[in-house]
Amino acid sequence: MSTDRLQILVTNDDGIYAEGLAALRDALQAVGEVTVVAPERPRSASGHAITLHKPLRATAVRLPWGGEGYATSGTPSDCVVLGIHAIMPRCDLVVSGINLGPNLGEDLTYSGTVSAAMEGAICGKPAIAVSLADYASPDYGPAARFAAVLVRQVAAHGLPPGILLNVNVPHLPEEEIQGVAITRQGKRRYEGRVERRLDPRGRPYFWLGGDIIAGFDDGEHSDGEAVQQGKISVTPLQLDLTSYDCLDALRGWPLA
Amino acid sequence: MSTDRLQILVTNDDGIYAEGLAALRDALQAVGEVTVVAPERPRSASGHAITLHKPLRATAVRLPWGGEGYATSGTPSDCVVLGIHAIMPRCDLVVSGINLGPNLGEDLTYSGTVSAAMEGAICGKPAIAVSLADYASPDYGPAARFAAVLVRQVAAHGLPPGILLNVNVPHLPEEEIQGVAITRQGKRRYEGRVERRLDPRGRPYFWLGGDIIAGFDDGEHSDGEAVQQGKISVTPLQLDLTSYDCLDALRGWPLA
Repeated sequence: MSTDRLQILVTNDDGIYAEGLAALRDALQAVGEVTVVAPERPRSASGHAITLHKPLRATAVRLPWGGEGYATSGTPSDCVVLGIHAIMPRCDLVVSGINLGPNLGEDLTYSGTVSAAMEGAICGKPAIAVSLADYASPDYGPAARFAAVLVRQVAAHGLPPGILLNVNVPHLPEEEIQGVAITRQGKRRYEGRVERRLDPRGRPYFWLGGDIIAGFDDGEHSDGEAVQQGKISVTPLQLDLTSYDCLDALRGWPLA
Repeated sequence: MSTDRLQILVTNDDGIYAEGLAALRDALQAVGEVTVVAPERPRSASGHAITLHKPLRATAVRLPWGGEGYATSGTPSDCVVLGIHAIMPRCDLVVSGINLGPNLGEDLTYSGTVSAAMEGAICGKPAIAVSLADYASPDYGPAARFAAVLVRQVAAHGLPPGILLNVNVPHLPEEEIQGVAITRQGKRRYEGRVERRLDPRGRPYFWLGGDIIAGFDDGEHSDGEAVQQGKISVTPLQLDLTSYDCLDALRGWPLA
């Protein structure tokens, strides 16, 4: 491993054997030295979980699209901590993905893909999450090629501390993608988020994740709007969740 | 159940049999009608995970400190969705806790306790996460009594859409608590976040969660600083993670 090349940690939440991970790894090998550290099984919707109460394994494995990586027993965030602090001699940048399915609006708070990039930012590294905004018969090519373009820019310009980039790529043939939009996190509206069923013994159980009704109700420059318009969305996210606008109002409440 | 009383959903991430949940429930019963919906087992550091790939159960159980609640097979966020959309006829407010251990700085992004309140905000409800900033031999009394004070204020003033409150209470006798501070989310610095060990067969495994070294390096009005000074910290958090400060710089990058 030459030490002057960009050292890139690649992870995901769909698991180390996912095709989207391989596509990302292949595209980024043109930009730097890639080390894959990813969950041994799918971890979708795992949020920013981290494993504190049991030990973790990291095992070198061969990947189905060639090359090697480290499969861990942990979450995507665990993979980032292990990659940076236990596996890679040096890590310059963290890229998570390519997720099969969008990470838009408040949904990104559930996302293992985005949380892995958050963990990269917590560890002081520039970090990017990449998602393909579709679930079926994916072509990861356009998203992987854009990831390589973006990584070069991040390597050139850097990112401020505590900032990560959340990328969503519309599932379109490359020539139909309508460019790149720098966006803000949008909002989604749900209805019927719980479906109640009865099991064969007549006892109730529940399925979460109802239909999205209104789509995006958030005006201009949102991530969801951009993807609906066929654009790649790039949203800068921050680790500081403080609502500074609320501080003064709360200071007026009689709480003492 | 009288329908004019405040309808409060109480959940946590330490599990439905945790003492902190009972203390919170008891204190809030003076403010409104409390429904407990909580994980059947501890879910610490579960982040904002939500269960989409398997069905969930919610079972009425008796609680060890008296009363009843619904134990679910899901995460804290699952409990909030189930409580609001499947169990409670009406929900006015979500309170999560009392967590055994602080949720300060970037650590709150790992927190099942805070994520449950986030889910409340996503569901359009005012929401509060309450944590006791200690791990050993807890006295939940002061934190529970403050939660009741705060819930009355939230019920009176409301919270803007997409805003939740993150509360950390120092582990001190009530008379030693130095008041309440409205704070911003601070920063923490870690070192030695991974410890490598060998198992009895000589194979490596890893423990995450190393020591915190520098504590809080973030100047004034942070959550961590307040708790260190013996104050209860109340931090308003938002669901919108967009770094608006970064948008212009990114728009200057050649990405197309």
